[in-house]
Amino acid sequence: MNAAPLCVLLTDFPLADPYVGAMKGAVLRDAPDARFVDLAHGLPPGDVAWASIQLAAQRDVFPDDAVFLAVVDPGVGTDRRILAAACGRQRFVGPDNGLLVPALREGASIVAVDAAAVRVRHGAETFHGRDVMAPVAARLLRGAPLDSVGVPIADPVAPALPSVRIDDGAVDGVVLHVDGYGNCVTNIEVAALDDPAAWRATVRGTDLGPIRRCYGDVDPGEPLALVGSIGRVEVSVRDGDAARRLGVARGEPVRVVRS
Amino acid sequence: MNAAPLCVLLTDFPLADPYVGAMKGAVLRDAPDARFVDLAHGLPPGDVAWASIQLAAQRDVFPDDAVFLAVVDPGVGTDRRILAAACGRQRFVGPDNGLLVPALREGASIVAVDAAAVRVRHGAETFHGRDVMAPVAARLLRGAPLDSVGVPIADPVAPALPSVRIDDGAVDGVVLHVDGYGNCVTNIEVAALDDPAAWRATVRGTDLGPIRRCYGDVDPGEPLALVGSIGRVEVSVRDGDAARRLGVARGEPVRVVRS
Amino acid sequence: MNAAPLCVLLTDFPLADPYVGAMKGAVLRDAPDARFVDLAHGLPPGDVAWASIQLAAQRDVFPDDAVFLAVVDPGVGTDRRILAAACGRQRFVGPDNGLLVPALREGASIVAVDAAAVRVRHGAETFHGRDVMAPVAARLLRGAPLDSVGVPIADPVAPALPSVRIDDGAVDGVVLHVDGYGNCVTNIEVAALDDPAAWRATVRGTDLGPIRRCYGDVDPGEPLALVGSIGRVEVSVRDGDAARRLGVARGEPVRVVRS
Repeated sequence: MNAAPLCVLLTDFPLADPYVGAMKGAVLRDAPDARFVDLAHGLPPGDVAWASIQLAAQRDVFPDDAVFLAVVDPGVGTDRRILAAACGRQRFVGPDNGLLVPALREGASIVAVDAAAVRVRHGAETFHGRDVMAPVAARLLRGAPLDSVGVPIADPVAPALPSVRIDDGAVDGVVLHVDGYGNCVTNIEVAALDDPAAWRATVRGTDLGPIRRCYGDVDPGEPLALVGSIGRVEVSVRDGDAARRLGVARGEPVRVVRS
Repeated sequence: MNAAPLCVLLTDFPLADPYVGAMKGAVLRDAPDARFVDLAHGLPPGDVAWASIQLAAQRDVFPDDAVFLAVVDPGVGTDRRILAAACGRQRFVGPDNGLLVPALREGASIVAVDAAAVRVRHGAETFHGRDVMAPVAARLLRGAPLDSVGVPIADPVAPALPSVRIDDGAVDGVVLHVDGYGNCVTNIEVAALDDPAAWRATVRGTDLGPIRRCYGDVDPGEPLALVGSIGRVEVSVRDGDAARRLGVARGEPVRVVRS
Repeated sequence: MNAAPLCVLLTDFPLADPYVGAMKGAVLRDAPDARFVDLAHGLPPGDVAWASIQLAAQRDVFPDDAVFLAVVDPGVGTDRRILAAACGRQRFVGPDNGLLVPALREGASIVAVDAAAVRVRHGAETFHGRDVMAPVAARLLRGAPLDSVGVPIADPVAPALPSVRIDDGAVDGVVLHVDGYGNCVTNIEVAALDDPAAWRATVRGTDLGPIRRCYGDVDPGEPLALVGSIGRVEVSVRDGDAARRLGVARGEPVRVVRS
């Protein structure tokens, strides 16, 4: 089976605007048989950190030959660089603001794109996703080697991710994101907790009890902390909206302590 | 023509989160040439009844060989079963909470999936759409027979759909859903009314007049009841938002009487 | 390379409803190997003018053989015509309310569709996108000539686009649309300004300074006017929401004067 090349998209472009569609059109002009999967759009505007975590968390779900086109790019039009990278057989295109870095592992190759050489349109400097990054992704989708779209670099901009503080028997983190259900995803990685069930979480003075496996472990309407689908502690309410119910927003401190 | 296998998705996953994208990635890992069509996402969280009606209403619009992956799954991680079904050549995957049942007609085959056998990830019990149902859908997309993904059952959980009350010359129903335009879709099926134009509808004390064929049958800004696109009575306002204008929400009683 | 036929969709269908999905299903029934790209959905309900501008602005980004299916159709079910058009090798299907016209250039061919001949469903007159336009698009995607779906016309309904007023040294326009970031897109075309940097913009008494190239030309949090991605003057706030910050909505006057 020789499936068409796969382009996976992640942006903060608003859901009801034509920006995602226009970017896909630009990819198709240069790679007419490309297929698309939308990993996510409408992400919080300019929230590079959260988008970078999603990209890193979900990339392994996708096929080995996927090309990821990731655009959360508040610096569009300035002299920030545009990067392309290869990590295993997967490839990545995005702005040089930390967005791609968490998804890249040991041994990844990174190049700085020569935007002037690939851009296909002139006049607007506000949509490099369509006018520069899409053509780069299209080249990679057509099988061009990474070094044909830019020159190797070793100093990508590091992502600004809020780090957890680990004290004796306590882990202090924050809410990174409130999802559309009202679930509050923290920066506390479950892998850092030997046995999650042996820890309990607290937010805004509410003891959420031991870290659970699923919503059904508590009664409907009850708050809980649980192991989320990207391997991080999440604060939820069964069949409810935790952010609203607990008054929690992005940045809210969350503490996990050994029971 | 030998089109790639088609996977049709219906979920309550929020529109601006990566859950739909991750689920597609998981399908592609096992069925690399699958194609996707999003029937709907961002449906009201946990509203199994409405999602089940949509699936039943729209399935016939899709090709005969479509595989539907439907996830509105508030019981994720509990011991609720996961089902796969075949109805004609179309196949369906989803939780055993009533979601699939209205779409399945006489003669459908249903199996309970052996989740332990197909799951591809471990650690999180909050995303069976990605980690169990997507791999099952992928197998079906690749042509696996239904009985290769589970064991036959005859007792799927029944959907909890609000039923209409039919009295002499009156049908009492409720609003099932307010769509993004503000149209209020009821559970009153037009097929139950001999000649729709011979009936008139009332909601919250407002007489909406005879049941119309289209918005243009009344003046701009006027409320009306009409035959909706899934064959149910809908309450609308021409060029306007009926839910806001009439103060109607999900669950609001609607009565239809013979003129 | 013989890529599958491409259908590009543009609608005001709400994002969380199954209308877009159902329309795609209807296309696939008749053109099983069609591919889809969503140019935009969830556009402001019934705002034909804005949708028509987007279609005209983005069509050239897409491949030459794309079939555009555009549905912003408040007159659905009335006797308004349904059009199909060819402009170069690209083809277009949509209601006859001005939606397609700005995208059609000199030499385009237009036909009025014989809806009765192509419709595939009966009973509902509220969803011609699915029941009439999708089957027409499917025929075109399968290579049918334009004149096989309708009869030539020369009098499509003209779009009602707000025009700019050009006085000596001043251009008066309005905000056509507020996008999901809060950027305010005006009807003032940059092509009408010799050197954009030699002009400055004013909105609601705020002098936005000279027209910029990108957000980074001002400090974070500062308002600005700039050359937007569809070649029109846009009012923005760097890393912010201009509509909220400046109290601007659709229809707000914007003036551009020579510095």
